[in-house]
Order: sequence, then structure tokens, then C-alpha cells
Amino acid sequence: MNTPIVLSQRAQALTSSAIREILKVTERPEVISFAGGLPSASTFPVERLHAATDKVLTDAPQAALQYGPTEGFAPLREWVAERLTRAGAPVPASRVLIVTGSQQGLDLLGKTLIDEGSKVLVETPSYLGALQSFSLFRPAFASMPSDDGGIDTDALTPALLDGARFMYCLPNFQNPTGKRLSLERRKALVAKALAAGVPVVEDDPYGELSYGGEHLPSLLSLNPEGGIYMGSFSKVLAPGLRLGYVVAPEPLYAKLVQAKQAADLHTPSFSQRIVYETVRDGFLDEHIPTIRDLYAHQCQLMLQALAEHFPPAATWTRPEGGMFIWVTLPQGIDTTALLAQAIARNVAFVPGAPFYATDPQVNTLRLSFVTVPAEKIETGMKVLGELVSEAIAALPASAVAA
Amino acid sequence: MNTPIVLSQRAQALTSSAIREILKVTERPEVISFAGGLPSASTFPVERLHAATDKVLTDAPQAALQYGPTEGFAPLREWVAERLTRAGAPVPASRVLIVTGSQQGLDLLGKTLIDEGSKVLVETPSYLGALQSFSLFRPAFASMPSDDGGIDTDALTPALLDGARFMYCLPNFQNPTGKRLSLERRKALVAKALAAGVPVVEDDPYGELSYGGEHLPSLLSLNPEGGIYMGSFSKVLAPGLRLGYVVAPEPLYAKLVQAKQAADLHTPSFSQRIVYETVRDGFLDEHIPTIRDLYAHQCQLMLQALAEHFPPAATWTRPEGGMFIWVTLPQGIDTTALLAQAIARNVAFVPGAPFYATDPQVNTLRLSFVTVPAEKIETGMKVLGELVSEAIAALPASAVAA
Repeated sequence: MNTPIVLSQRAQALTSSAIREILKVTERPEVISFAGGLPSASTFPVERLHAATDKVLTDAPQAALQYGPTEGFAPLREWVAERLTRAGAPVPASRVLIVTGSQQGLDLLGKTLIDEGSKVLVETPSYLGALQSFSLFRPAFASMPSDDGGIDTDALTPALLDGARFMYCLPNFQNPTGKRLSLERRKALVAKALAAGVPVVEDDPYGELSYGGEHLPSLLSLNPEGGIYMGSFSKVLAPGLRLGYVVAPEPLYAKLVQAKQAADLHTPSFSQRIVYETVRDGFLDEHIPTIRDLYAHQCQLMLQALAEHFPPAATWTRPEGGMFIWVTLPQGIDTTALLAQAIARNVAFVPGAPFYATDPQVNTLRLSFVTVPAEKIETGMKVLGELVSEAIAALPASAVAA
Repeated sequence: MNTPIVLSQRAQALTSSAIREILKVTERPEVISFAGGLPSASTFPVERLHAATDKVLTDAPQAALQYGPTEGFAPLREWVAERLTRAGAPVPASRVLIVTGSQQGLDLLGKTLIDEGSKVLVETPSYLGALQSFSLFRPAFASMPSDDGGIDTDALTPALLDGARFMYCLPNFQNPTGKRLSLERRKALVAKALAAGVPVVEDDPYGELSYGGEHLPSLLSLNPEGGIYMGSFSKVLAPGLRLGYVVAPEPLYAKLVQAKQAADLHTPSFSQRIVYETVRDGFLDEHIPTIRDLYAHQCQLMLQALAEHFPPAATWTRPEGGMFIWVTLPQGIDTTALLAQAIARNVAFVPGAPFYATDPQVNTLRLSFVTVPAEKIETGMKVLGELVSEAIAALPASAVAA
């Protein structure tokens, strides 16, 4: 017998993503999917992880299988603090919280920082999963204008920043656009945020995936005492372990720990110890370049395919790292309609509209180039190019001119 | 430079647990701690889990290390559905959500069911971690009266139930009291909840730890279509994997999935596959009896020590399963003060007050008998008995008579 269940207002506001439903068909093997947000499974260091797992289950099985501290496995927190310090952001391990994937960091930040109606500044567009997490706490999103270089820091006026609970940024090879913020803009952004008293939340899953290997200072390194930073092992090791971390200043850190305790007590001791065992001897420094090389090559292939198959009225980003290219089509084209046509021809991508917190640009789309084998990138992009050309041809002449 | 951070109202209401701070000292090796909520690490099936891990990392490493579906690993969901069905609660796998420890289930239920001020019915006393999770969403708790047999179902009046978003129950060997609800009360509880239109949330981490092995029908089995049920692998396998599950009726199930996606995308694929590989061939049916035997023996030792060392003015529960004994001392004794004295003598327990959502009974305390070696149970209980006797002797004569 079914009791009628009264849902909370925040649950009522949750809507099933139409796109998520469409994308379920992309799991069919015949579909060439540029839609995924997944890293390439070919990069997972299986043998290394297996050896680490053996060691953990031999040396300390009972501790690895028992409850652990909410803050995380102490040696892993130390390792994170040391790595960030070496990268120019000196932070103590006492301000590192291990989380169950950096997605959990978003949920904890939403819980501890957002009241109903709180102003939250996000990029245009921004990471869909962050918008979903924050939305549960019913903020009033305000969009930070963006141009080819990412957040347009000149547009960060005192009026826009005033009263915001925080500013959410992905400065490195942003999801969904692939854009990287320049050093000048990083400095301007942090200075303006400090002047306005707005905490900066930096989400950095792709920072290590710079194809050239060159490194720009994190926003955290420009304000190590005050910055809030999220890192992840999903893109440099493997996402199926669900392991990330949050760095935050006191007293926010203590509140995050309490919220984390209520959320899942702690991140699995088992996976924390395996990852620590895997990375402790500098393994990432030899492993990450192999991921970069693969992704750089695949990105190049997709950029070539775009140049060859897409009409001149389309524009796209040219990432120097990460996993995504962002395509903008002429006004008047709705990429959700285009997706239905593409799926009919066994190709998939993600329409851009859901990545906007306000004023969705329906003529945009996101392409991932990392999980599709090289030979299929050309095949899939040719199909997409044809569909885009057809869609442009079908537009009224006035729309194309605009 | 530290930007002043404005916390959400729910974060401001979070308070650091004084008890948690006190209990940090119980990690000293010389402390005999009856305070833990941990299962005994000696019961973790290390070899079996190691073999399962080897198999997963050999047969399907890329899938185990990749992102997975939010709902969970399909074969594990099927396994849970089949096991519940065999135990008398026929539920389809499509209504099983794998969560990152059943604590996460509490967070997701709080998110989807509680608005500020929503009435939520809880036991007297109840699981502290549930009270913490629900509190973040700022409900108005209402306490269901309890007697020696657990929830007093005669006291579940229409006025008490009216308008409640849900009723939260631990019918089996409850944390903190160790009490089990009788079959008659289970039936009465479900009938009254249905009549009042109040969904029942059943938290059942200890259900399999019945010392005699006998099984009472779950609340879910009395209402398989409408019940909300939480199970866990923490007490029957190992908590460090952080693996549990929630069964819920549609449309709540869909909302839980959406909330889970925002919370951590999905529970680690890696640990889900390891646990599935561990349990798929019926391993729990041979493993769980070994846990039951150990805990039954340790429980018996503690009950003997209580009878020997505690004064007649103290009363306690006599659990038939689970991990905890609940002690009630005479009115006028505050067990938080007693804890400070106990720690000075290297013995620890958990004061009972925080387990009450309303009207805390400060003269109660929780004892765990599962992690302390048998020989130390006697030593530690002797010290506690002396302290309790001293505390009673120090009471004014009028208080003891009451």
C-alpha cells in the first residue's frame, strides 16, 4: 500500500533532465558519443592500483576496512597539502578534507554557504553538476559574463559582486568550454573578490591536464589563507574510486567536516588508503604526462575534424588542456533538436543550454574528445558537420546574417 | 588574506559535539572504550574481500574504475532485491538505490522529505547520526514515547502522527538502546502509520545480528510497496567500504536518485563490485553467524559484569542482538560528568543525552560490547560500576528515593 509522500520544496523543484534521458541511448555500442564527461578508461593505471590494493589488504586490512575519521586518512591529507604547497599554494593538512569525489565538495559547500535566495556567482556557462548541487539549496544565481578567455574580469563590477555568498570558478580547461583563465585575469579576479568580500570557490579537476604541461598559479595560490579549493583524483587516476578533496579556511572547514559527517560519516577508508599507496612515491608525475599526451592528440584530431566538416558559421574553442570543446552555432539553431537528429544517426553530444544558470544559449553544445577512439572521431564529426550545415541551411536568411 | 565567510543558517546551527571532543582521547591505547559505534575488526573477512578485489581488478578493471550509474551497480541492486524478497519483503531492483553508507541515505531522505519546520517523528532515544543528518534541514522533531519494548505503539495517537513527513524507526537492536520491537508492535506501528498517511523510514543496520538467528518481519515486509528501508554492509561485512542501500517507493525513489547525483554522482564502482563479488555466492549466510556468535558472547560478558559491578539502582537493557546496551541511572546523575571521571580512569562510554531529539535524559548512557577484548570488559566495567556507585552515594537521599 502506498502512503502519499509529501516531498520537500527542494525535492519538488528537482526535475529529471530530459537530456539525461536522451543520453541513455548513447550507451548503445553503435553510438559514437562525444557526450560523456568520463575520462578515458585506457588511462587508468590498473596494475599500479592493483599492487597498491594488495599492499593495503596485506599490511593494514583491518584499518582499511574499519570506520575512519571524517576529515580523511591523515597521510593522504598530508600528501595533498604537500602537493598543493609545491604547486605554490601553501596550505596545512589540517585544512584538507577528503571527500567522496569532488562532487561531494559541491554539496557540502551548498549546505554550509547557501540559504534560500542567497546570491551565488557562477560562470557563463558553468559545470552542470555544480548548478545541480547548489540548486538544491535554492540560491539566486548571478552569471559572471564570459568571453573567449573565460570569465571577463572587467565585468566583475561591485554591483555584480555585492552580497554574493561565493563565486564559483573553474579556471583550468573549464567544463564545459575548455577555456583557461589567464594569469592577469586570475589576479584581477582574486583582487576583486577580496575587495568585495566574496569568497572564491575554485573547482580544479582538470588543472593537471595542460597539454604543454605548463602551469598557471591556482586562485588558491593567489590567496592561500582565504581560498576554497576543490581537487579530484578522478581525472588523473580513476573516477570509480570517488575521491577528491576540499581545502577551506577556518571556520568554514569545521562546518564542512560536520556536514560531511552527517552526509556519509567519512570517505571510504579502503579507497583512501589505496590511492595514498598509489601516489605516495611520485607516481602521478610519471603517469599524468601519458594522459596529457593522449588527450592532446585526440583534441588535435577533433579540431581538425571541426575545421574540415563544420561550416564557417560555427565557432569553437581551442583548448590547451582538459577534455572538452565548446561549439557555438548561429542564433536560431537549438542544439537539443539537433541532438535528436544526431542520435538518429548514432552520434551524440551534450546540448549547451543546461550549463547556463541564467539565460541559456540554446545554440551551443559540448564535445568530449577523450573517450571516442581516434578513428571514430573523424566519422562522428563528419555526421555532426553535415547536420549542422543542414540546420544552418534551413534557417531564414535573416537569422544567418545576424 | 581571509575573506569573512557568511555561513548558511543551517551551518550556523551546527554545533561541534562536546562529546565528540571528549571521545577523541579514547583513541589512546590505554583507554578501555565502550564508546565506539564500530563493529569488531576481527570479524572483517579480509581474505574473502582480497580475493574478490583481485577478481574485480582482473576481470573488469576499467569498468570498476570508471564512473557508473547513480542508482548503483545493477547486479548488486538485483542481489539486494532478491535478498529482501527472500526475507519476506518483495521489492524490485528498480527501487533499490546503492548509497555511500546508509548514513548517506539519511542525508538524501532529509533533503527530499524535510522542509524547515516539517514534523519528523523519531524514537526516544534515537540514532544520533540520523538526528544530525535530519537537523541540517531544520525539522520540528516529535518524539515517539518508548518503553522496555521500544516504541510504545499505544502512544502513537492520531494527534502525534498528524502531519508528520515521516516516522524514523530502528526496529532491530536499536542504536542506542539495543531494543527490538515485537511482531505485534511492528504490525500496530505500520497500521497506524498507514492510517495516518505517515511514511515509515526503517533503518536496519543490525537486523541480521540476532544472536539466536531468529528473524522478525521487517516493517518493509509489512508494507513492501510503501515502506522506505535502509540497509548496510557495514555491520555484516566492513564499514570502511561505506556501502549501504535505500529502498523507496516511486516517486520518492526518483527524487532520491536526483539528490544522490548532486551529492556524489554515484557510490564508488570499485567497492560496489568488490562487495557484489564477495556476497554473490551466499557468503553472508556462512559469515554472519560468526559475527553473531562473537557479539552474543561479548554481550553476555558485559551483562554479567553489569550484574556484578553495578548497583541495584541502575537498570539496563538485555539485547538479543546488535552491539549496544543502554544503561539508566537514578535521576540526578549526569552521565556527561560521569564520563569525565571515567576518562580520568581510562574508561569511556557515550552519555545518552545527545540521542534524544527532545527532553534529553541525562542519566542514561550507551555501552558497546563488541570492540573491547573479553578480558578488558570485566576490568572496564568494574571501574564504571565503582564510579556509578560513588555517584549514587553522592546524591541527596530524596533523589535516590525518587
